[in-house]
Amino acid sequence: MAGNTQAGASSTVIGFIGTGIMGASMAGHLRKNGYEVHVYNRTKARAEGLLQQGAVWHDQPKDVAKHADVVITMLGYPSDVEQIYFGADGLLNNARDGAYFLDMTTSSPALAKRISQEAASKGLHALDAPVSGGDVGAREAKLSIMVGGDTQAFEAVKPLLDIMGTNVVHQGSAGAGQYTKMCNQITIASNMIGVSEALAYAKAAGLDQTQVLKSISSGAAGSWSLSNLAPRMIAGDFAPGFYVKHFVKDIRIALDSAAEMGLELPGLKLAQSLYEQLIEHGGDNDGTQALYRIIAGE
Amino acid sequence: MAGNTQAGASSTVIGFIGTGIMGASMAGHLRKNGYEVHVYNRTKARAEGLLQQGAVWHDQPKDVAKHADVVITMLGYPSDVEQIYFGADGLLNNARDGAYFLDMTTSSPALAKRISQEAASKGLHALDAPVSGGDVGAREAKLSIMVGGDTQAFEAVKPLLDIMGTNVVHQGSAGAGQYTKMCNQITIASNMIGVSEALAYAKAAGLDQTQVLKSISSGAAGSWSLSNLAPRMIAGDFAPGFYVKHFVKDIRIALDSAAEMGLELPGLKLAQSLYEQLIEHGGDNDGTQALYRIIAGE
Repeated sequence: MAGNTQAGASSTVIGFIGTGIMGASMAGHLRKNGYEVHVYNRTKARAEGLLQQGAVWHDQPKDVAKHADVVITMLGYPSDVEQIYFGADGLLNNARDGAYFLDMTTSSPALAKRISQEAASKGLHALDAPVSGGDVGAREAKLSIMVGGDTQAFEAVKPLLDIMGTNVVHQGSAGAGQYTKMCNQITIASNMIGVSEALAYAKAAGLDQTQVLKSISSGAAGSWSLSNLAPRMIAGDFAPGFYVKHFVKDIRIALDSAAEMGLELPGLKLAQSLYEQLIEHGGDNDGTQALYRIIAGE
Repeated sequence: MAGNTQAGASSTVIGFIGTGIMGASMAGHLRKNGYEVHVYNRTKARAEGLLQQGAVWHDQPKDVAKHADVVITMLGYPSDVEQIYFGADGLLNNARDGAYFLDMTTSSPALAKRISQEAASKGLHALDAPVSGGDVGAREAKLSIMVGGDTQAFEAVKPLLDIMGTNVVHQGSAGAGQYTKMCNQITIASNMIGVSEALAYAKAAGLDQTQVLKSISSGAAGSWSLSNLAPRMIAGDFAPGFYVKHFVKDIRIALDSAAEMGLELPGLKLAQSLYEQLIEHGGDNDGTQALYRIIAGE
């Protein structure tokens, strides 16, 4: 990477593709730290805030790539990632010499490996670096960032990642970041079933659900979901912190990759079927805590 | 209840039946607070520590009941509870006038209601008051105690409960304590599947499982089990904090009571089938974290 990456003192040019709720916050932190930031987003309106902060707009992703030493992508689905990285107009075919690519989308480990190999064949560097922490973590620059790719590339971009997150961990070679993010989602999926079932049971038994949380939240049943999402389930607040449709995407990625490894994940499979029921009931754009509706039959 | 229940200043006589690992600690705290404590346990050797602290031994449960104003039971299975409370030699037929009974065993809500009704018909008071916090919580008097029964009886025995626990909550009428404990176990059951699956997936993907925990433990996937039991799974340490055989008992109670209420709990049902596989593989006396062995196929 050309020059140093110290905050506020760098000649490194950053490209940021995908300036949705999280991406806009993340790119904003880089901009505030003095980096020149070039952006592209499918819906230009969502980049306006960044442009007002001095980011440079391009009408096509490949033009971002042509201007940037480090290109960060924060997209929706693996198919978006595939489309934007590959092909004649893709990022990898329009990159600066020796450029770095960081895909921070939650995407498939197999695709991350493919991008890494293709990048290496062109003398480029690609890392997969999905995050957890949601829009609040992105806004407060407190993301957990899980990185896959080679060590030299990780060290080179780490100062940028430290601007966006507080828990930046190199998890291994290409794909390891995505695999780690899948571990995160696998853990959450079954726990959401448990939390939903406990509240549904409490209600059926005639208990005061909020009072039940007082007894169980701080002990061995305790979890982030029980503390943060159970109260929303009780209140009937199904507004999205994290969208059901995105969670179902992640579950599919995890199940596909597990199948490739010959691993059965019965809990995750159950979560998939329950969340698909939720989608059939129109829950695509609810938050993941809406699983309670399916379990409680509401 | 005769006299006051202030620590160290009470004429209230306590009976404690079931002085296993947890029961012995709990009875010990009452004794250290100045209460006269009468004890019975199936295996007398396990009461020796208490007898050295001045507790009074009886060869039969009914003799404990004859001496005590408040009788606490901390047993293994609902069948033990049923046997010790009912019948000619049972606690309820040998109680002091107006005595209080606290069943702190994790047992069935239906049985708790039955005990409560039978007690009331004799002018006695019964509460169900199961706990969470395990042997450490019992030793350190930091249990969470979930209480079902009428308010007057709860208020009368609360000073005793406050000696054994730090989180004493009245959850409702008879059975509500047991229902609440079931909510605790339901939440844990599915989360154990998620934690086990995440670690099995991490291993299959070639990740360093401990490094994965650094990325995921403090965010939305975080839980008591992930922080406390996942490291033991990784280390292959399946020593019991909480026995598989006891957890399977609790799962059965929860599923039976859910069925009585017409509620389906697919996550808990899956947990039951996985834990039963673990028992078929000889895991009865392992800790609940041994579920990892089944998921990872180890």
